[in-house]
Amino acid sequence: MNFLQKYKEVIHKNNSLLCVGLDSEFEKLPERFRQVKYPQFIFNKYIIDQTHDLVCAYKPNSAFYEARGVDGVKELKMTIDYIKSKYPEILTILDAKRGDIENTNRGYVEHIFDYLEFDGVTVNPYLGISALEPFLDRRDKGIIVLCKTSNLGSDEFQNIEVGNKKIYQIVAENIVNNWNGNGNCLLVVGSTYKEELKKVRIITGDMVFLVPGIGVQGGSVEDTVKYGINSTGDGMIINSSRSIIYAKNPRHEALKMKDEINRYR
Amino acid sequence: MNFLQKYKEVIHKNNSLLCVGLDSEFEKLPERFRQVKYPQFIFNKYIIDQTHDLVCAYKPNSAFYEARGVDGVKELKMTIDYIKSKYPEILTILDAKRGDIENTNRGYVEHIFDYLEFDGVTVNPYLGISALEPFLDRRDKGIIVLCKTSNLGSDEFQNIEVGNKKIYQIVAENIVNNWNGNGNCLLVVGSTYKEELKKVRIITGDMVFLVPGIGVQGGSVEDTVKYGINSTGDGMIINSSRSIIYAKNPRHEALKMKDEINRYR
Repeated sequence: MNFLQKYKEVIHKNNSLLCVGLDSEFEKLPERFRQVKYPQFIFNKYIIDQTHDLVCAYKPNSAFYEARGVDGVKELKMTIDYIKSKYPEILTILDAKRGDIENTNRGYVEHIFDYLEFDGVTVNPYLGISALEPFLDRRDKGIIVLCKTSNLGSDEFQNIEVGNKKIYQIVAENIVNNWNGNGNCLLVVGSTYKEELKKVRIITGDMVFLVPGIGVQGGSVEDTVKYGINSTGDGMIINSSRSIIYAKNPRHEALKMKDEINRYR
Repeated sequence: MNFLQKYKEVIHKNNSLLCVGLDSEFEKLPERFRQVKYPQFIFNKYIIDQTHDLVCAYKPNSAFYEARGVDGVKELKMTIDYIKSKYPEILTILDAKRGDIENTNRGYVEHIFDYLEFDGVTVNPYLGISALEPFLDRRDKGIIVLCKTSNLGSDEFQNIEVGNKKIYQIVAENIVNNWNGNGNCLLVVGSTYKEELKKVRIITGDMVFLVPGIGVQGGSVEDTVKYGINSTGDGMIINSSRSIIYAKNPRHEALKMKDEINRYR
């Protein structure tokens, strides 16, 4: 089953477009987790057990695991192994924003898909399609290309005007027209930029978006769903990280977010 | 001593602008290295011992270590620890092409500068300056921003025309004018694009470039030096990976490349 088939099944099964971002920074973990042998894994296991029936995907960001060196990478692998064995229906996405020349990307592909066994990964388009072919060649995986990122200041290059369009629109057009030969591309479009979200939806038809920026970053759920939804009433993986995983009651927060998203679908 | 001071000292000491790319892919290592306990580290140690007086920098690409999971990351750290203890005058650069939102980049900074203890890192500009501040804030480190990459197909986005200039030129201008407040920025400009190299040199004055693409990728040493050299007769870290590390006699190849670069300076 490829990434998008798995997506369709899990959003139906759990009635959810919510993705929980496992950005489990060691320093921010509750005291009781920081004292165990595998702090990031045990914390993730707790979050996963609390939320697995409320989500369509889990998305750890590689940076927070790499920060702890080999221990962190080991616990990232333990986390994915746990999800795959206990809740195999849930999509796993590594937020890694990788992108190098072609020969080098083979190393990342090996790490992310063969060693860690993620279902999908985020990649950076700056080097162009031919560089990213080792990712795109993996038909069964989700290759999620940065288009318009959620951060303040993402306009510096992404919103440069070229004639009557902007760079992020050209990225979206190229992905749809040239990169998606294997039908395995998705786009990252931040919930913090609703006008851009609307424009990218028009360019890309029903393509699925990974949408970060809800919660701590300030994106509105109502606008995100209104402008990002596709013709089949889905087409989004809406991520929330810090406001769920560091909540007093993560299950409660995840349920609230899942319901809020569904209210506007 | 910061990155650029160390650069000036080592290029003087070794009379070399050559950087050896430690892209030590496990599958490509000679048989005798693939059978030892720490194959990538032992191979790197061999290359480093053969070439340390001929280079200004070593640049492992993270992908080839991540490909082997925690074992690879461990051997990457062993490699850097070895260089730091035995040849502390040589610059160490992690080719990682990282770039995420601000909060997340703190994790990468921790991994690359505090855990692995590299002197410099390559970063991707697509998310804009404010996202990359955790890197730029590290005054003592070299923050090497992708501008015009060496790969075929790098023109897809980098050479989009905006009025009378191209995206890679805007990237170079922004780095010089806005990103370099701490004087710790460098640029990646591929040796495979001599016209672009020439233009970026004009935009950036004496800024130091990391220049990949010599050797297997086909960049000419003569043109690279001719178009890339700055007013003080240096301003480049010229990388060669595969044609040196997989040569029958890596020292001989490194010496040849170092001399060829110097011939045109």
